[in-house]
Amino acid sequence: MQLNLSTDIALRTLIYLGRKDGIATISEISESFGISRTHLMKVAMTLVAEKLLLSERGRNGGIRLARDASDIRIGDVVMLMESNLALLFCMKDEAIDSDCTLLPDCRLRGILFNAQKSFFATLNESTLADLLPGNPNKK
Amino acid sequence: MQLNLSTDIALRTLIYLGRKDGIATISEISESFGISRTHLMKVAMTLVAEKLLLSERGRNGGIRLARDASDIRIGDVVMLMESNLALLFCMKDEAIDSDCTLLPDCRLRGILFNAQKSFFATLNESTLADLLPGNPNKK
Repeated sequence: MQLNLSTDIALRTLIYLGRKDGIATISEISESFGISRTHLMKVAMTLVAEKLLLSERGRNGGIRLARDASDIRIGDVVMLMESNLALLFCMKDEAIDSDCTLLPDCRLRGILFNAQKSFFATLNESTLADLLPGNPNKK
Repeated sequence: MQLNLSTDIALRTLIYLGRKDGIATISEISESFGISRTHLMKVAMTLVAEKLLLSERGRNGGIRLARDASDIRIGDVVMLMESNLALLFCMKDEAIDSDCTLLPDCRLRGILFNAQKSFFATLNESTLADLLPGNPNKK
């Protein structure tokens, strides 16, 4: 049960930018965390497309938060970055036609969906603001 | 965000045995699901060691549930089978000494732990009995 590296990079980038409370370059962030510049660029593009980050061109360009940190929910970020939310094969759309002998009367899928829903609901109780030092809502 | 194949095999084996309400051989179960006999054997050994299954030797031997299906909580099975519960690297024990520049004042780890706790708590609201056809507590 693991989240993928893109999710890790997205969360760390958001925390970095929230702490800095300003603009930062891709190089600066990738060097700070020792992560691939290419991978970070790809993640940043996703976050820009989802209006979580703004990208500014030019000599002093870079990326920065597109909204207040208190408007960025952690569960939404994780859900956005996790490309595969099917905990088991049977949760994939194509599994409806699978030949698993437990079908059609298997309730596992529904139970797993509910658990995943609880996971994201708990994550969404926190925003990026809660992850920044100095925030009074320290968890 | 995925569970591993061993978890999948464990859950399906428990459901199979719960439906059968009796003994089954490793070959019978592996053939029924089209899964590796070796992998199933390894998973079954873990479930026997954890007293979820009983293994019976001899000509009519095989495996069967060691307890009532209502005494087998789904979250416990998933937690047992998932060898790696660290959602991100920073949740691993060895990460305490990591050089992530967000440390020591990073709250992400705690938030992820809480979300994972909700995930397992929701799974543990269901037992194997809830996954068997004919059970009145249909979810």
